[in-house]
Amino acid sequence: MKSIFRNLTMLFDYYELTMGNGYYEKQMQNKIAYFDVFYRENPEDGGFAIAAGLEQIVEYINNLHFDEDDIAYLRGKGCFSESFLEYLKTFRFTGDIYAVPEGTVIFPGEPILTVRAPAIEAQFVETYILMIINHQSLIATKAARITRAAKGRAVSEFGSRRAQGADAAILGARAAFIGGVSSTACAVADEVYGVPAGGTMAHSWVQMFDSEYEAFSAYCDIYPQNATLLIDTYNVLESGLPNAIRAFKEHGITKCAVRIDSGDIAYLSQKIRARLDEAGLPDCKIIASNSLDEYIIRGLLHQGAKVDAFGVGERLITAKTDPVFGGVYKLAAVEDAHGNIIPKIKLSENVGKITTPHFKNVYRLVGRDTGKAEADLITVFDEVIDDTKPLEIFDPENTWKTKTLENFVAVPLRVQVFKNGKQVYTLPTLAEIQKHCAKSLDGMWEEVKRFDNPHNYYVDLSKKLWDIKYTMIKEQRHKK
Amino acid sequence: MKSIFRNLTMLFDYYELTMGNGYYEKQMQNKIAYFDVFYRENPEDGGFAIAAGLEQIVEYINNLHFDEDDIAYLRGKGCFSESFLEYLKTFRFTGDIYAVPEGTVIFPGEPILTVRAPAIEAQFVETYILMIINHQSLIATKAARITRAAKGRAVSEFGSRRAQGADAAILGARAAFIGGVSSTACAVADEVYGVPAGGTMAHSWVQMFDSEYEAFSAYCDIYPQNATLLIDTYNVLESGLPNAIRAFKEHGITKCAVRIDSGDIAYLSQKIRARLDEAGLPDCKIIASNSLDEYIIRGLLHQGAKVDAFGVGERLITAKTDPVFGGVYKLAAVEDAHGNIIPKIKLSENVGKITTPHFKNVYRLVGRDTGKAEADLITVFDEVIDDTKPLEIFDPENTWKTKTLENFVAVPLRVQVFKNGKQVYTLPTLAEIQKHCAKSLDGMWEEVKRFDNPHNYYVDLSKKLWDIKYTMIKEQRHKK
Repeated sequence: MKSIFRNLTMLFDYYELTMGNGYYEKQMQNKIAYFDVFYRENPEDGGFAIAAGLEQIVEYINNLHFDEDDIAYLRGKGCFSESFLEYLKTFRFTGDIYAVPEGTVIFPGEPILTVRAPAIEAQFVETYILMIINHQSLIATKAARITRAAKGRAVSEFGSRRAQGADAAILGARAAFIGGVSSTACAVADEVYGVPAGGTMAHSWVQMFDSEYEAFSAYCDIYPQNATLLIDTYNVLESGLPNAIRAFKEHGITKCAVRIDSGDIAYLSQKIRARLDEAGLPDCKIIASNSLDEYIIRGLLHQGAKVDAFGVGERLITAKTDPVFGGVYKLAAVEDAHGNIIPKIKLSENVGKITTPHFKNVYRLVGRDTGKAEADLITVFDEVIDDTKPLEIFDPENTWKTKTLENFVAVPLRVQVFKNGKQVYTLPTLAEIQKHCAKSLDGMWEEVKRFDNPHNYYVDLSKKLWDIKYTMIKEQRHKK
Repeated sequence: MKSIFRNLTMLFDYYELTMGNGYYEKQMQNKIAYFDVFYRENPEDGGFAIAAGLEQIVEYINNLHFDEDDIAYLRGKGCFSESFLEYLKTFRFTGDIYAVPEGTVIFPGEPILTVRAPAIEAQFVETYILMIINHQSLIATKAARITRAAKGRAVSEFGSRRAQGADAAILGARAAFIGGVSSTACAVADEVYGVPAGGTMAHSWVQMFDSEYEAFSAYCDIYPQNATLLIDTYNVLESGLPNAIRAFKEHGITKCAVRIDSGDIAYLSQKIRARLDEAGLPDCKIIASNSLDEYIIRGLLHQGAKVDAFGVGERLITAKTDPVFGGVYKLAAVEDAHGNIIPKIKLSENVGKITTPHFKNVYRLVGRDTGKAEADLITVFDEVIDDTKPLEIFDPENTWKTKTLENFVAVPLRVQVFKNGKQVYTLPTLAEIQKHCAKSLDGMWEEVKRFDNPHNYYVDLSKKLWDIKYTMIKEQRHKK
């Protein structure tokens, strides 16, 4: 099995090192800390996001170590003690990690991943964990939006050449598959992660032959089972389409496709459909590409475009219209010498940036009749939700806004992934993750998923957690 | 020396394989083809871009090969002949590559890289070459814009956690350095590429201690030489700044800095500067971060912000306001059986998308008196420019717009990088590339570099090339 894994233990912000060395010097390296990963706003003013990237985090944590080159590099910086460097030589991750499985619909403010570990360890993994979750959740979310706009038509990911580096291309294709695309153009994403790859020809294939017809005919000779012809090298309706029809007919091919990568897709696709049908090729599919995204696809379908499948490139692989997923990593608690959990909070003049303290848990409250999610509830880690009785939830910012849930089931949103540094979670296959994502999206009301002014899904705090948070805010405001 | 290189020969669009197999089946695999990389529009409606990524392309080409896993994967797809798979086992790049050195200012329409190689080889390298150039040129260009806005103040790259994958973080830091940032937070970018890395503390450091003052004091104990304190965990002016001043004073530190990562930077930085000066700490620097880019930095300085250095994160590492660099890879010529170059053109209803045919060369025409670039000239590969005589150049779209250059020197913009598959170009160091970039930018008039409505730099075609192109357009229009 091919792997493209590299040990990137050193992919962290330099301050993790200065802080790590600092904790070590101050004998604080074994102080247990709890850090939460959460994000504050849904991409594109949408109603939700999709969690992705956990598999790469597991791989990273399992392999976390400094090699000889790393130690030599750090020694060369001249600001770390030899005893700290010695400590780094045998450094491994020994903590616990809890996370939302990949493909789960997530919402702002929820701890989608929590690290409980000695301070240095918890600090060292910050940058990489955030980078992986931010990147793959960004692309999975974008893919969910785009495939939703395509209303059941296949969407293929075509963006490698415009991706922000190799991992953006490969893991971007993986995340896009989780979010719902059916295939990718990226061959190595198929080889390594099993994202089905496909592709046929570029304009250069057509140009390499003396005529467009010869290029098409040669392609049909070699790939009678996979005859997708790119018909916009010269002129779609005057040249590309007639030449394609001729090549299909002469080769007796009826299961085939034409692709257009430029021009007015709404207009051209309707003309093409009519001529293919006239020519007795009703099973010939029409594939369209060219700077597409959810907004353009929605517009095309609204205009009656006759497109069977979409190829989506740069606007998916970079999430062009909103290319940053703003996940953060914030201290939520520490443990004292006796193992008691001491919640920590970070205040901010900006109310939305105040963190929710404590080691927490998240539940999705799902209606037993509807199968739809009504709200998520964040609790202190050891709270038990009794879902046999009605439950009153309330908006944490406007506490007079209450709602009583009945006949619901409280589903824990997270799993434990690492325990004392050992992986305790079996990673699902990529196909299973894609299925889980579709199911998680199915469990959301349409109002949450629409593009324009989506319903603001409830993410509430339990009464116990709310009391702790607001007591701490009041205390902290009086401290210096 | 640490390397993070991986063999990513398989990182290509699947159609490179179907076409490659097709060329092989049709005995066209040795037909020599010329492909140009160029881009059509400057990022952010700016006046220029910066070329970057050549070093990674050289590394990739030198290592290009299919390993056993790759062959096994391809065999499993069931659509490639055994003789083609056999051919792939010994596949290497045997062609020529010409490219603009990294750090060079480039403009739309110029062939910034040309591949001359047997058809399969030239096709296989398309995706990776485009991806590398598109990504690093995007970030180098953004960095050049941001450092320009900072008017000589140091800019540090802070974006790893929001990068689109590991390569986006690491090679993004490399490209940002080329474009002018002075340092990065990304430790592995320092270890592997020598981009100077630095960093001090996160909010979590402050929260891990019983008080902000204790956190600062502990940090000053350990790093008296590198005492940069983050002063916005609780309240900048009421708590962070007085605690920092107290810690600096008690440790006798005068060469130090404070960092703010939130709030009104224009207002706060002025207040901080005044209080630091009052406290006898005129050498204490002020560092600001928080979703900065060229537009916000320009605004802050316009408002009189007293900032000595900027930390720039997500908006640089993703080029957030325009995150796609649209480099393309287009067939420009083929060779016939006798080695004659046959130019190729791709027409389009969109005039701007018509390609410029032939194997070409690019010159920068620089005034001998001013040292400033007046225009770039694209020629047929074997043309000689006599820069001892006046030269009339003309706008290729509006040919009546002419200009006569005198007293200029014609500097070839590209170097040969590979010849018959062998590297013939010595890669410069990263520091040299950064210097070359600064010099290349210095060689441009201010009008080309300004953010708003920059001057449209002339990229003209020689008379000979123009004649070939427009003759081909006319001929092609009559073909089917």
